[in-house]
Amino acid sequence: MDARKREILDGARRAFAKHGYEGATVVRLEAEIGLSRGAIFHHFQSKLDLFFALAEEDQQRAAKQWLEEGFGPLLRRIADENPAWVGVYLEIARMLRTDPAVRERWLRKSSEHDRLLLERMRELQARGEVRDDVEPTEIGRFLGVIVDGIALSVGAGVRDDVEPLIRLAEDAIAPRS
Amino acid sequence: MDARKREILDGARRAFAKHGYEGATVVRLEAEIGLSRGAIFHHFQSKLDLFFALAEEDQQRAAKQWLEEGFGPLLRRIADENPAWVGVYLEIARMLRTDPAVRERWLRKSSEHDRLLLERMRELQARGEVRDDVEPTEIGRFLGVIVDGIALSVGAGVRDDVEPLIRLAEDAIAPRS
Repeated sequence: MDARKREILDGARRAFAKHGYEGATVVRLEAEIGLSRGAIFHHFQSKLDLFFALAEEDQQRAAKQWLEEGFGPLLRRIADENPAWVGVYLEIARMLRTDPAVRERWLRKSSEHDRLLLERMRELQARGEVRDDVEPTEIGRFLGVIVDGIALSVGAGVRDDVEPLIRLAEDAIAPRS
Repeated sequence: MDARKREILDGARRAFAKHGYEGATVVRLEAEIGLSRGAIFHHFQSKLDLFFALAEEDQQRAAKQWLEEGFGPLLRRIADENPAWVGVYLEIARMLRTDPAVRERWLRKSSEHDRLLLERMRELQARGEVRDDVEPTEIGRFLGVIVDGIALSVGAGVRDDVEPLIRLAEDAIAPRS
């Protein structure tokens, strides 16, 4: 990614965290990014494009961490995420229900990551590290629900120790003896 | 509760679900409830009071169901909840972080329910139905995170089978053999 695009995305992330998605007007995006609307929207077509580019970065990072380091480290990092930025996701979650265009785009974006995680889950089952009496998609969904539940707390400004939650989640998906 | 208060709360719930919390203006509350603002705010001091009265009803119902029927039936009902109403909670979750008055009030309201559930968890541990090598508060938090994660999906308009999730959650908290 070129430096100008990087600069725009970093500024947009700050603006969304500071003002919320709805509250991040073009004027506020300009102020935080330090570029004119012409320059910003030359690189990204719309405010929604900016959000989706940021969410894509987050999701790639999360999938990579999950695949390479495991579920515990991912959960720890999410629990440490900037609450104001996580709050933007809560705003978008509501739009997923009310705005079909946002919804369609979100689902399309997620499917590639889901495919990778599913492969990983199958691999862990084959190696005997994850129980194989439950469908790999269901194990992925279960861990995803826990990620979402933690994110909801973080976005609401609650910060708690996640270690006991990681332990319980890992026990849930461990091979049955 | 007298009939007039009941009527106001039912109408407010419909108005919040239809327009969102922010979008439920006084004019829209009047239209949905079928009463003047004078009559509405004679019984409830503010829009926030209306939301908190509704959340209190939900939370009492959830705690009662959890205590009497268990975690599975509660999760099934939440997965079946009206997505538009659950979306109102996502809106309020963000306000918990940004509005100290909302936050303080929410925490105060939740502590009584938390106390009841903690007692219940201790009882289940004593009866050998829930593992006792994890603090009862942590088990309650774990199940709460799962409830929140499901609620986030429902509020985003995603409806999935919760049975595999219930099974995995129950395995996580089952006594270790």
